[in-house]
Amino acid sequence: MRTYGQPSKFEEPVKRLVGQPFGKLAPGAGVSFTPLQSLTGTITPNGLHFERHHGGVPEIDPARHKLLIHGLVKKPLAFDVAALLRYPMVSRTYFIECSGNSFRNTLPQAQDVPCGAIHGLLSCSEWTGLPLAVLLNEAGVDAGAKWLLAEGADAAGMSRSIPLSKALDDTLIALYQNGERLRPEQGYPMRLVLPGWEGNMSVKWLHRLKLTDGPTHTRDETSRYTDLMRDGRARQFTFEVGVKSVITQPSGGMTMPGPGLHQLSGLAWSGAGRVTKVEVSADGGATWRDATLQAPVLSKSLTRFHLPWNWNGAPAMLQSRATDEKGNVQESRSAWNAQYSSANRYHNTMIQTWAVNANGSVKNAYA
Amino acid sequence: MRTYGQPSKFEEPVKRLVGQPFGKLAPGAGVSFTPLQSLTGTITPNGLHFERHHGGVPEIDPARHKLLIHGLVKKPLAFDVAALLRYPMVSRTYFIECSGNSFRNTLPQAQDVPCGAIHGLLSCSEWTGLPLAVLLNEAGVDAGAKWLLAEGADAAGMSRSIPLSKALDDTLIALYQNGERLRPEQGYPMRLVLPGWEGNMSVKWLHRLKLTDGPTHTRDETSRYTDLMRDGRARQFTFEVGVKSVITQPSGGMTMPGPGLHQLSGLAWSGAGRVTKVEVSADGGATWRDATLQAPVLSKSLTRFHLPWNWNGAPAMLQSRATDEKGNVQESRSAWNAQYSSANRYHNTMIQTWAVNANGSVKNAYA
Repeated sequence: MRTYGQPSKFEEPVKRLVGQPFGKLAPGAGVSFTPLQSLTGTITPNGLHFERHHGGVPEIDPARHKLLIHGLVKKPLAFDVAALLRYPMVSRTYFIECSGNSFRNTLPQAQDVPCGAIHGLLSCSEWTGLPLAVLLNEAGVDAGAKWLLAEGADAAGMSRSIPLSKALDDTLIALYQNGERLRPEQGYPMRLVLPGWEGNMSVKWLHRLKLTDGPTHTRDETSRYTDLMRDGRARQFTFEVGVKSVITQPSGGMTMPGPGLHQLSGLAWSGAGRVTKVEVSADGGATWRDATLQAPVLSKSLTRFHLPWNWNGAPAMLQSRATDEKGNVQESRSAWNAQYSSANRYHNTMIQTWAVNANGSVKNAYA
Repeated sequence: MRTYGQPSKFEEPVKRLVGQPFGKLAPGAGVSFTPLQSLTGTITPNGLHFERHHGGVPEIDPARHKLLIHGLVKKPLAFDVAALLRYPMVSRTYFIECSGNSFRNTLPQAQDVPCGAIHGLLSCSEWTGLPLAVLLNEAGVDAGAKWLLAEGADAAGMSRSIPLSKALDDTLIALYQNGERLRPEQGYPMRLVLPGWEGNMSVKWLHRLKLTDGPTHTRDETSRYTDLMRDGRARQFTFEVGVKSVITQPSGGMTMPGPGLHQLSGLAWSGAGRVTKVEVSADGGATWRDATLQAPVLSKSLTRFHLPWNWNGAPAMLQSRATDEKGNVQESRSAWNAQYSSANRYHNTMIQTWAVNANGSVKNAYA
């Protein structure tokens, strides 16, 4: 009997992939990837939720933490954690995806790494918290307020500008993930969750919200998280993540155990709402078949898809292509590359290709 | 950065409550309770899923584990874990409730313990596995087969008889919980999940399924898990758990932080399908108000309910009463007691009462 259980020792290899793939970073900065290739279903266990920190993980005593709401409000307010825990809460299952997810597939050569090392800045939890709108209504938003600055209590003071419309829509102040209180690396004791928007806007260790008449243009949204386009211009404030999918089984580094019937399995998601269709190709996009979507299909959540595939033992090129309820369709690699600079590392939604070789080995491929 | 994350040290008190509440047990036997009073949402983190073992937690090397299907079948089959992992899988969110859950409220005096220590033999996960029907069809079920014996590989050889109709309906051989492989205490590397049926039938560490023409009457289903009725007869094979609910916030041992508006929150579930209604009373059942059910409401899964409550500071008796899609309504304490022997400890579905005192303290009460 253990008061807090742990995985089997035989599952020890299933762990977050820790790296500093963005080059030399500040102390404590870095990233760890969810091992998507080892997981199934749609919920990410809390211990395997991806991490991306700009200044380490602060150790915050909840008894000494406060959330301040100020700026263009009728009445500035400060809340301690105990006060927030008294508010009505809702639970919603949402994915969070880092805007830098899948950046490895923007590099010139296809990296021969596992699925999670490419696409694992993606996790999904049942978040419980209070609608931010409740607190904003209590503070009283001035007519001139159009944006918020959200700031974290980490060493990096991670901060982003958020349109008021999103804050009043489905944004949560999350206090729980998958039933228990937030993990330290997920923003304990509180974080924002902006459903469907790039992950870093769901500011962790949240301690300040300032209502403003425009974006603050913080370091975090000017030095990073802008999308360099092919024509040399950069797009800023591209918040919503695109429609996307990836086959997780089989995927890079795995070996097919022989010809015959296999179940392909993968994940699909969209920042715009529900996934309505996932198509799978085994011939590099020449022909497509509809996969089965695992119910319930929830908005801005991960959707698991499955498709039986009878592999004849010949080389194959596996792809998946997601469509969402707004009619957005996941783009091919060439369509994505036609828009973005080869130096852009953000918002990569291009279709993933896994090359299956005659010997059964599966590798990342550009197609 | 950690390869497998853990809760904040400030959340260390949130843990499974380990006990041996059934009296003197065999070595390794015992129980640990999910701390429902500290959790919210509907998913139970894997580390906090309740435990009930008859002979400890075996350490099973998945490379050396097999599942045997034999008895009244056309072709006995044995599967290793790698073979099962190739099968098509489905993910379903189901609760598991021990048939001994809430036994503490069958004791003569109301125990002044937290909600989880009473009702915490209850957890909910997204289980992923293969329908048992797929393997039974492959083995070919003889016409005379009406039941299965399911046996675990633990020291206790925990075994139960299961009607074939349930095995062919929604029973899963689960390999994953909440995305990752089963935890050791949840039956690693594989367990049955019998949605909506008493927990011990979801046999953990599953290694044998024998098709039979009737129930096997194993030790585990004759010495235990029969319901002693008020007239001295005992009911056997009462598999489906009843419709039930409990308020988790506030609950026993908590203190209301003062009069004013509070959010009541709790869990409801039924072995018969979906919860359709939860009513809440603050006056010991004299008057009721409908609570809000958190969407999505899934079949045989936990449903979170909420209700705002303006506490005026006077003593109150909080209760919740669930109704399911089959029209079953959770019973009062007196209605339950009218049927069952005072010695019966199983399938307690009676309405929970939390007494709120004028000083704000909350205590378990019989009403």
